[in-house]
Amino acid sequence: MTPTQTTDFTELRAALDPLKAGREIYALMGELYPICRSITGDGFRQTLARLKKEIPLDVREVPTGTKVFDWTVPREWNIRDAYVKNSRGERFIDFRKHNLHVVNYSVPVERKMSLAQLRPHLHTLPEQPDLIPYRTSYYKEAWGFCLSHRQLQQMPEDEYEVCIDSTLQDGHLTYGECLLKGSSAEEVLISCHACHPSLCNDNLSGVTVAAFLAKYLAQAALRYSYRLLFIPGTIGSITWLAQNEERVGAIKHGLVLTCVGDRGNFTYKKSRRGNAEIDLAVEHILKTSRRDHSTLEYSPYGYDERQYCSPGFNLAVGCLMRSHHGEFPEYHTSADNLDFVDSGALGDSFAKILSVFDVLEHNRTYMNLNPKCEPQLGKRGLYSVTGGTNIKQLELAMLWVLNQSDGTHSLLDIAERSGLAFGVIREAADMLFRHDLLKPCRENGSAASHPV
Amino acid sequence: MTPTQTTDFTELRAALDPLKAGREIYALMGELYPICRSITGDGFRQTLARLKKEIPLDVREVPTGTKVFDWTVPREWNIRDAYVKNSRGERFIDFRKHNLHVVNYSVPVERKMSLAQLRPHLHTLPEQPDLIPYRTSYYKEAWGFCLSHRQLQQMPEDEYEVCIDSTLQDGHLTYGECLLKGSSAEEVLISCHACHPSLCNDNLSGVTVAAFLAKYLAQAALRYSYRLLFIPGTIGSITWLAQNEERVGAIKHGLVLTCVGDRGNFTYKKSRRGNAEIDLAVEHILKTSRRDHSTLEYSPYGYDERQYCSPGFNLAVGCLMRSHHGEFPEYHTSADNLDFVDSGALGDSFAKILSVFDVLEHNRTYMNLNPKCEPQLGKRGLYSVTGGTNIKQLELAMLWVLNQSDGTHSLLDIAERSGLAFGVIREAADMLFRHDLLKPCRENGSAASHPV
Amino acid sequence: MTPTQTTDFTELRAALDPLKAGREIYALMGELYPICRSITGDGFRQTLARLKKEIPLDVREVPTGTKVFDWTVPREWNIRDAYVKNSRGERFIDFRKHNLHVVNYSVPVERKMSLAQLRPHLHTLPEQPDLIPYRTSYYKEAWGFCLSHRQLQQMPEDEYEVCIDSTLQDGHLTYGECLLKGSSAEEVLISCHACHPSLCNDNLSGVTVAAFLAKYLAQAALRYSYRLLFIPGTIGSITWLAQNEERVGAIKHGLVLTCVGDRGNFTYKKSRRGNAEIDLAVEHILKTSRRDHSTLEYSPYGYDERQYCSPGFNLAVGCLMRSHHGEFPEYHTSADNLDFVDSGALGDSFAKILSVFDVLEHNRTYMNLNPKCEPQLGKRGLYSVTGGTNIKQLELAMLWVLNQSDGTHSLLDIAERSGLAFGVIREAADMLFRHDLLKPCRENGSAASHPV
Repeated sequence: MTPTQTTDFTELRAALDPLKAGREIYALMGELYPICRSITGDGFRQTLARLKKEIPLDVREVPTGTKVFDWTVPREWNIRDAYVKNSRGERFIDFRKHNLHVVNYSVPVERKMSLAQLRPHLHTLPEQPDLIPYRTSYYKEAWGFCLSHRQLQQMPEDEYEVCIDSTLQDGHLTYGECLLKGSSAEEVLISCHACHPSLCNDNLSGVTVAAFLAKYLAQAALRYSYRLLFIPGTIGSITWLAQNEERVGAIKHGLVLTCVGDRGNFTYKKSRRGNAEIDLAVEHILKTSRRDHSTLEYSPYGYDERQYCSPGFNLAVGCLMRSHHGEFPEYHTSADNLDFVDSGALGDSFAKILSVFDVLEHNRTYMNLNPKCEPQLGKRGLYSVTGGTNIKQLELAMLWVLNQSDGTHSLLDIAERSGLAFGVIREAADMLFRHDLLKPCRENGSAASHPV
Repeated sequence: MTPTQTTDFTELRAALDPLKAGREIYALMGELYPICRSITGDGFRQTLARLKKEIPLDVREVPTGTKVFDWTVPREWNIRDAYVKNSRGERFIDFRKHNLHVVNYSVPVERKMSLAQLRPHLHTLPEQPDLIPYRTSYYKEAWGFCLSHRQLQQMPEDEYEVCIDSTLQDGHLTYGECLLKGSSAEEVLISCHACHPSLCNDNLSGVTVAAFLAKYLAQAALRYSYRLLFIPGTIGSITWLAQNEERVGAIKHGLVLTCVGDRGNFTYKKSRRGNAEIDLAVEHILKTSRRDHSTLEYSPYGYDERQYCSPGFNLAVGCLMRSHHGEFPEYHTSADNLDFVDSGALGDSFAKILSVFDVLEHNRTYMNLNPKCEPQLGKRGLYSVTGGTNIKQLELAMLWVLNQSDGTHSLLDIAERSGLAFGVIREAADMLFRHDLLKPCRENGSAASHPV
Repeated sequence: MTPTQTTDFTELRAALDPLKAGREIYALMGELYPICRSITGDGFRQTLARLKKEIPLDVREVPTGTKVFDWTVPREWNIRDAYVKNSRGERFIDFRKHNLHVVNYSVPVERKMSLAQLRPHLHTLPEQPDLIPYRTSYYKEAWGFCLSHRQLQQMPEDEYEVCIDSTLQDGHLTYGECLLKGSSAEEVLISCHACHPSLCNDNLSGVTVAAFLAKYLAQAALRYSYRLLFIPGTIGSITWLAQNEERVGAIKHGLVLTCVGDRGNFTYKKSRRGNAEIDLAVEHILKTSRRDHSTLEYSPYGYDERQYCSPGFNLAVGCLMRSHHGEFPEYHTSADNLDFVDSGALGDSFAKILSVFDVLEHNRTYMNLNPKCEPQLGKRGLYSVTGGTNIKQLELAMLWVLNQSDGTHSLLDIAERSGLAFGVIREAADMLFRHDLLKPCRENGSAASHPV
């Protein structure tokens, strides 16, 4: 890696207009919203095809029946149409009006039945009577419809014609993978589930932000390699891990992205390790943003971090959200739509994640080459010359870096310890490095190379 | 140990009626209250004889003069009568009215004396003028009487006849020991001082609750062996430790029980180790009871935990109390009587201790046998099938157990980490074990056996 | 070391009258205040000469040009006179009126100039218009005057005669060193910068308190050797460390003293280690004084602790202050004068530091020689004999010392753990030692000797 290349990343980051990025991300989401996705099938393929126009994406197909650890890749589900027609032939429930109207992975059905017979197959939210719930039945053969409770209440006794024109057949599980090579083989994993139909915050927000991250990172000179996965939830991460076990060791940091488009404050769920560099980096960025945020300890309920953080892998993968999944009323309902997400929030999420990557890219551990007493910074032009007045922030940062650089504290550690922003600490370290006052420590047994 | 046996303990625990148990404990206390106990002598023997009707108790006799570490078993004290008579021959202070009237271990005396001569031998509580204090003089030959301050104030000048009809002679120190064998040679120690005369909370409460614990545990199939000691304070635990040094290594957990009969909230004083399994177990049970309680760090002032936790032993022995000894006004006075203790509180203490033992009995460390990604719980019927809704507590507990079972976290650790009750975590582990998803780790070098 | 000698230190400490000491310290400060000090030169020599009347002081001279790590000993600066005269020949700014009027280390100048030409060389404090600032220019050749902003505002257009009659020539850096030998070669370092001209709290307070510490310690039998350094800030500690590298290993504890004369509460800045014995000792003394105080984590901005705690040395040196340098308005201005400091505060600082040394002198780690159960203190006359009442503080302290003395807890650790004052814990340990119940552990590989 050369100094010029590294400067690129930071310059790129500095030049970013989060509002503009947010609007672009939102526009992409608008295109993806109408597609009916599931954990397999053509909706997923269509989604990847659209992303491929933006980023270099490899589309992988894994056949039904493939063993992936304790699981098996399921049959592929596709749906053309679904409805419940009343005796006058009117579509009382119409899949064409909303993808959520059909229970995802419903087996085909074509029957006439009374309301009483149909009723067990109808899902509503009595507490949120205007919203259509999102329901799935991936691993048990079933069928059903989802509708607003108000609509259900208006459903008269009748003989209904029920049709789900779906197929559940041997086929493939499809996922997208984008690898952006950096100078190191060590990887940053970005994972998002792309299996939800017509739900914006969960998780078109993660999908579109991840796509823009890939687009953006592709322009930069990178220290780490970045691997982005657009996968179906649970089965997708399990499949990837099962088929890429030998690659897992290269993953040094990771983030699952979900619910990053709403107007709420950030929520970060730490990796199972709890004190991984990614955990410290995200917390540092959220803390220095001076906005309220919450940090949660790892728990085994959530999204694909459940798999990355299973004890046999225990990867340093956290989960970044704005509002926490399951804790906002729009969650898993038709209200998680294009009105619920916000381009400003999307742009802010995008920028914050890039700030986190900026920390990862530039975090290093140095040795002070003049460890006995302070070096004379003044003679190198690094220190203001008139004594008796207060010290400047950058000079203070240099003192911190010199004092703590004994090979056991990274720049991020020093930023946290000093209460100064990582950027200031890093700038101080760069200046000291240029004046031969620091040398980078070897990390992970490989020869360390300095970015400047 | 067989599954059936273990179920027994838990079933027994579930079937317990704490209120009924409390009433029985209280009734036993009522029988023991009138006996004049001391650290040696017939009052102690009488107490053990009564307990022996309830539980299998070995009564040990250790001769006066036996060296026990830095101490020597003292002469045996017995008392028949004691009084202070006025010149009209009326008993102004009468041992027959209250055991506390005589300083415990008073040497015999039979003299006439003026009030001025007698005064230095009279103990009162001027701040609590209606109460008789409890005083002892075990290791210095002395004699004295205790009375209420109000009674002292009404004591006229007179020539008094003072009589303490006691004996202090070579004899024995007596204590009771009850060993209930479990499948393991590792022991849970329950220790209570039984040397206090006519004082209920301190410590007939500990004695009677311990007796009912023995009675109860004797019916159950046990993992651990339980050793219950009914001993005189200080010299009793020192004597037991000196004479059983080779047994000390088997003690894995222990509790000193005292002041467990009053209406106050629980107080737990941790073992000197501070993070022993018994400390975590008691705290977990008190915390999940949702009642206020306090947990204290170890300090070397208190009851027999002082000896068990001396640095040469440093056993994992904590001390469970409700109100803290020395901090309630009735402490060591005639007001610590049958009115002060409460059958409800006794039953509650009893039940809580059994809950602690339930944790100890079932706490284990497991290895997840499917550590790479989550196992598919749904195909085993362990997970609800319709997606999109909230997870159930037991399912969440299974995820926690799977995620944390890497050989370094016990079920109790997982309960604490997850915020779920131990019982739920244990049930989840049992289910996962039955489905071959967990195996118990070997503990302490011995082959691990699973309870289910 | 013999028992008599150690008793001396504590007796001396007990006999101390802090108010009297404070008045003497203040009187010495009054003598030193008028001297114009700098980091080199005759003002510094004059200061040391005055201190030498009080304490055994070695005055060291290090030639200009000597390399000290990354630094070089600068040329020596001396000043005879300085002024700005108006066209009528009146001294508008007169160095004879206040040492702060000239920028410290100003190069010689003798010129006529207009106000506009002079203006860039004039320093004021617009926010504190009545005060003269303190400014230096040690490492860049420059000259200037400092004056109150009000005086500047009254300065008319005129032709001024500007004169700084200084010399900046090869010479020496001077510092004072006082070594008081104790029975151990291990040292306590006390360091204070003595380079500030006519500034009382910063740092004649440190200088004079340190001098009185030396005077006082010289009378006592000492466990540790005490090394007191009266040095110019930064370059002085760097010079000493560079020239005494082989002695650094003997420094076990250290304190930088600064701003110990004002009326504020104590502020202690911990050593870089953060949990060194000196850190614990100072905190214990400040905490048990029951006055508000603040404890700060180490930071690399401050006084000479910056050098002692540079990563190549990482000495256990903290910094004791009352008000924190830079945070009181009088700091580095003419208002830091003899009115700002207080003899009571000086005496209190002096006494507190001696209390800290009292802890260091007597802190030891013991082994309980009767570790199995408590020893019977009563038979040794160490425990009150009537049971049933509350324990006395000294008895409680004995129980703590016995319980914790397993070779891993020092007396200071035990004091902290128990919440008892170090003095009580130490007295308990002394009593137990005299009764053969404790033996001191060997420390640092040398044979341990007990003080009593």
